[in-house]
Amino acid sequence: MNPYTTYFERHREQHLAELKEWLSIPSISALSEHKEDVRRAAEWLKDALTAAGLEHVTLNETDGHPILTADHLHAEGAPTLLIYGHYDVQPVDPLNLWETPPFEPSERDGKLYARGATDDKGQVFLHVKALEAILKQEGRLPVNVKLCIEGEEEISSPNLVQFLDDNAQDLAADAVLISDTSLLERGKPAISTGLRGLCSIEVSLNTANTDLHSGSFGGGVPNALHAIVSLLNSLHDEQTGRVLVDGFYDGVLPLTEEMRGELSKMDYDEEKLKADLGLDTLFGEEGYSFLERTGVRPTLELNGVYGGFQGEGTKTVIPKEAHAKITCRLVANQDPHDVLAKIERHLREHTPAGAKLTLVPGETAFAFNIDPSHPFLQKAADAYETVYGVRALFTKDGGSIPIIEAFSRVLNAPVVLMGFGLPDENLHAPNEHFNLENFDKGLLTLVQYLKTV
Amino acid sequence: MNPYTTYFERHREQHLAELKEWLSIPSISALSEHKEDVRRAAEWLKDALTAAGLEHVTLNETDGHPILTADHLHAEGAPTLLIYGHYDVQPVDPLNLWETPPFEPSERDGKLYARGATDDKGQVFLHVKALEAILKQEGRLPVNVKLCIEGEEEISSPNLVQFLDDNAQDLAADAVLISDTSLLERGKPAISTGLRGLCSIEVSLNTANTDLHSGSFGGGVPNALHAIVSLLNSLHDEQTGRVLVDGFYDGVLPLTEEMRGELSKMDYDEEKLKADLGLDTLFGEEGYSFLERTGVRPTLELNGVYGGFQGEGTKTVIPKEAHAKITCRLVANQDPHDVLAKIERHLREHTPAGAKLTLVPGETAFAFNIDPSHPFLQKAADAYETVYGVRALFTKDGGSIPIIEAFSRVLNAPVVLMGFGLPDENLHAPNEHFNLENFDKGLLTLVQYLKTV
Repeated sequence: MNPYTTYFERHREQHLAELKEWLSIPSISALSEHKEDVRRAAEWLKDALTAAGLEHVTLNETDGHPILTADHLHAEGAPTLLIYGHYDVQPVDPLNLWETPPFEPSERDGKLYARGATDDKGQVFLHVKALEAILKQEGRLPVNVKLCIEGEEEISSPNLVQFLDDNAQDLAADAVLISDTSLLERGKPAISTGLRGLCSIEVSLNTANTDLHSGSFGGGVPNALHAIVSLLNSLHDEQTGRVLVDGFYDGVLPLTEEMRGELSKMDYDEEKLKADLGLDTLFGEEGYSFLERTGVRPTLELNGVYGGFQGEGTKTVIPKEAHAKITCRLVANQDPHDVLAKIERHLREHTPAGAKLTLVPGETAFAFNIDPSHPFLQKAADAYETVYGVRALFTKDGGSIPIIEAFSRVLNAPVVLMGFGLPDENLHAPNEHFNLENFDKGLLTLVQYLKTV
Repeated sequence: MNPYTTYFERHREQHLAELKEWLSIPSISALSEHKEDVRRAAEWLKDALTAAGLEHVTLNETDGHPILTADHLHAEGAPTLLIYGHYDVQPVDPLNLWETPPFEPSERDGKLYARGATDDKGQVFLHVKALEAILKQEGRLPVNVKLCIEGEEEISSPNLVQFLDDNAQDLAADAVLISDTSLLERGKPAISTGLRGLCSIEVSLNTANTDLHSGSFGGGVPNALHAIVSLLNSLHDEQTGRVLVDGFYDGVLPLTEEMRGELSKMDYDEEKLKADLGLDTLFGEEGYSFLERTGVRPTLELNGVYGGFQGEGTKTVIPKEAHAKITCRLVANQDPHDVLAKIERHLREHTPAGAKLTLVPGETAFAFNIDPSHPFLQKAADAYETVYGVRALFTKDGGSIPIIEAFSRVLNAPVVLMGFGLPDENLHAPNEHFNLENFDKGLLTLVQYLKTV
């Protein structure tokens, strides 16, 4: 029997009690009234890492919340891993939808409910306890380890890239290890080898200087809603599902048979997806499966459109303005700034006569991609296989974690995404929770990885 | 000198004091907390009409606010006029934009400010005092008069058509006289010979059973906003400005050279309109002027479109639903129910795959049209000319007053729209007012009309 199995069973209650203590601290980075709570959560982690035996445990001040670093660098000749995670959490509204209070951790049906349980305190905690276990059991670590745990991930990490730039030497590592993602489903571990990039833009059209009455003016003046409907409709080919912005697909790599094969291994059930979402039909770019469309193809989505009267009943108004919010998910080799410039040009060229266009570009993030044949990834898949009995699949995720691309670029190191959440654990929503099956297996998997990488 | 000029000058202060008293009663028909105020305004008018010498002054109960009727039928051989108006008023929000409180009437620069000053208490009051003046000066009226003044015009007259149907015999008249419209501009009287009809419909599209995250699903599922943009864009030809609903223009009469000539008499300044509204360009159906587009051509307008995220910043959501509110202004020979049916068919046929359509049809109103050569209209133009020194123009108005078509149809009588407001008197808005120049001239014009019709 794996001695670590015994170790973690013996310490399970103690570990869960500690995690609950940490989860009780409402470290909501987005809300200034929780600034001190965010710091308390950082201090808590500092103490926990110190107790675990990590060295140089330091809270690094930033313009926002502190970044915690630590290391343990005594495994001469062994590789160096940089472990990244975050101790801040999402806001909790709507509070009334929580079955138990978000900052009073509660176990039910083998799940631990609390804000931050899976995203990301629970997963960071696995690293703390895996390192502690090895140090306590063996007196040394089989690899060199650095930690970089921030408190601003949920507000787009405004200070982390600068911190990475300033401390690139100190943070240098052979690989970056992050546990902030999910298994595919229960018992099916996955290592993401791709995350999409992102860019966003807000669009406004203005016509007259005032709302007008449709009796006196209807049919004789531009209507901002007609204009925005026409403008937004120009963005897609309704038949093929393709984005019609000139050059949008520039640089997008064709889908190889190899990648198509890797994705098809996931044996994704599109019929079940349709049933779950109540959809008659899926929709997307012609010639691609759902996983291909969301994993390796870019998309341009309207996230909000609004203008004119939204109340009950009828109002015979010709609105003077209309608005839209657009985000794109981007893939390898698409530069988000270049894509934004192309969208801006398209919108300018397609603005109907009589309407004035205002554009406010927003966030940008590059896509992240890594070759699954990299040894650090293969060993991660091995570690999962040892503990879960199933080899991890290499997936492409549709979402964006901008900071991952930054780690990859600034530190010039492969990023290994070993997540232990599940897709339905309500992260960013009420009743966030962490399945304790993956708490237990996560600890063992991380120990296994650290000992074999 | 016209003896009525002297009479009205002598009684001016008294008349204005009475009108202010009436305007002080907040008879907002839309708000149930003002139900008693609406009745008080009706009682006030009942007393005023009785004092003026009208007979059979009666408050007729309805399911809503009462309808006031009265008559004076002693001019044997002379025609009978039915005078219609309303004593209810619009709500007053936003209250903070009023320079003086809406129910504390206040004179400034020759204008009387109060909610209802021009719409329609002030104009109804002109009829009360014109009738009173003739009765006091001459002891008799030159015509037979009936009055029907309701308290629900601002909430679409839910009980009036039934009342007209039930009392068609008692309300029978040779013409219906209404003062609830405006001059073209200061010193330029107008008699509307056309009002557009109306129909409305609310459109909803639903895709998935929940909002989805654009990272995990973007590019792979239908987006309700993409669907509604496509659907709404199908309604118009962007180049020609024409409505693309099959059969929408069925029955619309071609614009005759005669009507075009009548409208061009108004010498409408489109450049000034553009400057006033801050527009680079007007827009509408190809081949028509602004007055033609808004006066004798139908239109389909989006009054509201909304779905997804409207807050600050970015939210990477794929909305599960999107909504639009549509109204049409219709012209002669268009049946609003038929037009609605055609729009519904169009929307069903153009709903993109993956979206479910829900339609809620709303109001309908037929257009109103009258031949300006009718003697009752020509004499109205004469009366204006006598008092204003300028002959009234016969106009086509873009707006809809559904009740006018009902009067015309149920009573089978011509409707004479002799209005004394001005287009910029802020009806339905803060700082509603009535120009006292037209208060004075209105009294004289109505006396002149009653004596000569």
